Amino acid sequence: MEPVKVTIWNEYVHELRDEHVRAIYPAGIHGAIAAGLSGHGSFDIRTATLAEPDHGLTAQVLEDTDVLFWWGHVAHDQVRDEIVDRVQHAVLGGMGLVVLHSGHFSKPFRRLMGTSCSLRWREAGEHERLWNLRPDHPVMAGIPDHIELAEEEMYGERFDIPHPDELLMIGWFPGGEVFRSVCAWNRGLGRVVYFQPGHETHPTYHDPNVLRILANASGWAARRISRDMTQAPNSPALEPWHGA
Amino acid sequence: MEPVKVTIWNEYVHELRDEHVRAIYPAGIHGAIAAGLSGHGSFDIRTATLAEPDHGLTAQVLEDTDVLFWWGHVAHDQVRDEIVDRVQHAVLGGMGLVVLHSGHFSKPFRRLMGTSCSLRWREAGEHERLWNLRPDHPVMAGIPDHIELAEEEMYGERFDIPHPDELLMIGWFPGGEVFRSVCAWNRGLGRVVYFQPGHETHPTYHDPNVLRILANASGWAARRISRDMTQAPNSPALEPWHGA
Amino acid sequence: MEPVKVTIWNEYVHELRDEHVRAIYPAGIHGAIAAGLSGHGSFDIRTATLAEPDHGLTAQVLEDTDVLFWWGHVAHDQVRDEIVDRVQHAVLGGMGLVVLHSGHFSKPFRRLMGTSCSLRWREAGEHERLWNLRPDHPVMAGIPDHIELAEEEMYGERFDIPHPDELLMIGWFPGGEVFRSVCAWNRGLGRVVYFQPGHETHPTYHDPNVLRILANASGWAARRISRDMTQAPNSPALEPWHGA
Amino acid sequence: MEPVKVTIWNEYVHELRDEHVRAIYPAGIHGAIAAGLSGHGSFDIRTATLAEPDHGLTAQVLEDTDVLFWWGHVAHDQVRDEIVDRVQHAVLGGMGLVVLHSGHFSKPFRRLMGTSCSLRWREAGEHERLWNLRPDHPVMAGIPDHIELAEEEMYGERFDIPHPDELLMIGWFPGGEVFRSVCAWNRGLGRVVYFQPGHETHPTYHDPNVLRILANASGWAARRISRDMTQAPNSPALEPWHGA
Repeated sequence: MEPVKVTIWNEYVHELRDEHVRAIYPAGIHGAIAAGLSGHGSFDIRTATLAEPDHGLTAQVLEDTDVLFWWGHVAHDQVRDEIVDRVQHAVLGGMGLVVLHSGHFSKPFRRLMGTSCSLRWREAGEHERLWNLRPDHPVMAGIPDHIELAEEEMYGERFDIPHPDELLMIGWFPGGEVFRSVCAWNRGLGRVVYFQPGHETHPTYHDPNVLRILANASGWAARRISRDMTQAPNSPALEPWHGA
Repeated sequence: MEPVKVTIWNEYVHELRDEHVRAIYPAGIHGAIAAGLSGHGSFDIRTATLAEPDHGLTAQVLEDTDVLFWWGHVAHDQVRDEIVDRVQHAVLGGMGLVVLHSGHFSKPFRRLMGTSCSLRWREAGEHERLWNLRPDHPVMAGIPDHIELAEEEMYGERFDIPHPDELLMIGWFPGGEVFRSVCAWNRGLGRVVYFQPGHETHPTYHDPNVLRILANASGWAARRISRDMTQAPNSPALEPWHGA
Repeated sequence: MEPVKVTIWNEYVHELRDEHVRAIYPAGIHGAIAAGLSGHGSFDIRTATLAEPDHGLTAQVLEDTDVLFWWGHVAHDQVRDEIVDRVQHAVLGGMGLVVLHSGHFSKPFRRLMGTSCSLRWREAGEHERLWNLRPDHPVMAGIPDHIELAEEEMYGERFDIPHPDELLMIGWFPGGEVFRSVCAWNRGLGRVVYFQPGHETHPTYHDPNVLRILANASGWAARRISRDMTQAPNSPALEPWHGA
Repeated sequence: MEPVKVTIWNEYVHELRDEHVRAIYPAGIHGAIAAGLSGHGSFDIRTATLAEPDHGLTAQVLEDTDVLFWWGHVAHDQVRDEIVDRVQHAVLGGMGLVVLHSGHFSKPFRRLMGTSCSLRWREAGEHERLWNLRPDHPVMAGIPDHIELAEEEMYGERFDIPHPDELLMIGWFPGGEVFRSVCAWNRGLGRVVYFQPGHETHPTYHDPNVLRILANASGWAARRISRDMTQAPNSPALEPWHGA
């Protein structure tokens, strides 16, 4: 089986600015995920960041990508609309997209959902427990009934998203909130996965269960087809006996 | 019960340009729908067209609208993005939207779906039969097991839309195609209905079954709440005993 | 508008056996719900219990019912299969069904879901917070962003149900669990609502928010059509030009 | 990769009774499918029929099955309820189930759907065209935009099923009907696929596209986990700081 071609996009701002974040993610969040995935399967991984030309997401890179990860937070607005068009087009044409944590407010995710993707939040270093609703689902392979994260930002409902095609995990926070933490949607010929944990001040992307889920999501959401679906063909009748 | 406040938007281009279309819809497609709805319930109807300032869709009009109809075809690109933002925001905040026929490629519909909304098509004046999958659904109230239209443009699968939250009718064409002709989605706090029939050269919006469905859709998709969901509130913990 | 014809079914065993339960529900759980609904709309209410002939659910009663409530717990097995057939048939033919709390394991609910409907549970008198995911939904009309119950039995995921057609509320428990507490499905021509709160030792069915939701659910799930869908008709071709 | 363990169940009545059917399926429908699958992947195939003890579906067989095919028509009632319980339990515990054609009225399918599964039908040897709505889906791998069958029984809407979790193909018939021909649902930990073509008097299960879809469905629906989900565990609190 061919390795899955993964591109991990990170705005890569916090890590450069903030020593505390850099201590947790010295190679950037993208670097941590890249390193973590490697232990869980056969992946051909590249990374891309905001500061690169085209944010590192040229047409050629996207064509050569089976699944794109997206982490962004403070710089959503700096992502150029032209690149967002390109990412959307790639997903509709078959590329997978895994949107991480604060990426809920990223342009590509909001574009593909059509909603505001707002939610409630609190930075209090609470622990989080994520309940596994679909132990049968490929994205949940090897994941127990619930997993625990020692500290995470709280994200709470109401999460303004379309009804997920599949709801895989619900998060619980000690402060009293719940969240649809792992969801999946089909969009065009591509699959979109949202994964809630991963605030930059917490070591979430070093957690073995989190990495296992992300590796599973890479395999599951990976491109299975490549086709431009934007054209609306004028189609001749298929039935010769049509008496128009 | 208060009358439902309906705004019928039509680009209103074909009717002014093309004598044949004008003969079918002398008061415009919007005028025909407005007249037709009146016989099916208690509606407070206004219309709006592309040529009006703000395309007739000021913030105040949308706030005062329970459900917006949208018919467009040749002038999708002339709809200003600012107005599309406004329509999207209104739907997410609770307004209903009924997208008609060639409106599948309109900016508001594509914005809310997140997909290309492409399809296959043929102008051959074929008849169409629409099968009722949900005789129990409020939008299908009073509609028989199938309805017939003597002539319509063919729209065929694959229709590039998200999996509908509800699939109400499937269309059959003699040339050999099928189509998910009546679908509904929740987006934010609003309901979106897509209704396939209604090419400008056919008298579809004079058909009693069609008008009954559109009247039903007005009632069903009408705003039930009004709220701005775009903010992501920082939320204090609800549990006093949280030991962070 | 005609009043909604509600039948509230209760196995009515705990209240007769257990003084503590009887103190909370002196007229039975069915009596409390009947009294509570009355304040929230125009309902024509009858009740039915296990001990009655046909468990109070004759064919005539079901035909004359728009929405059936179901509360059961210790006596699921005593419900006769013939009556379960009748309830299923009524739902498929258009009657609404609102399944309460421990009714998750009732025969009619499992029959309509096709799954085991198992879950995890704990009787510890914890408080519960229910988050409103669909403030726009008719069943949530008038319900705030979250509601609180001072004491309730814990029900936790994984709840073995089909993916809900609509997910309205998610419950949070201090012991660390979450639950899809208010869900809706279409089955045949009927609507099925599951509502999690309501253990017999807690005064849940006296809570104003709970009663408001149940009243809303009565209106929303109420029969809108009456038809026997069990027959598979041999259908002549509709197209005269069919050259078989 | 381990071969997928497929069990093909066929009531095997028509083939023994009717010379015309036997001419098309000399080894039985189960035999034709078994032979056809072999060319499309790595499968470990067994067959089972109504006349065998336990209809060939002992507990051990089901435990050792990743995906079960089901073809039945005239003998649905002869399938013992005990075996239906067993099949349902196996699906909820992770086994895949592919229900073929007239199996829409089989006991296992109706049990898992919870609805009547009725439809309209006509035996007129019409051709059928099936439109591919999900070219990206594993079950549709290698299948073109539409496929054609030279003769098939007509199955038409309204098909009384729960809203499919995924709708893969819609069928078109020259007599004027449409049908949700290929659908998928999750039930418990198992996946259920319904595939409409396959009347016993037509050579459908010799068609290369049909066999490709069935082979794909075997891989996609195959068991990924094995677990008994019927128990409802009493669960201790996970949060030590719970102040009940």
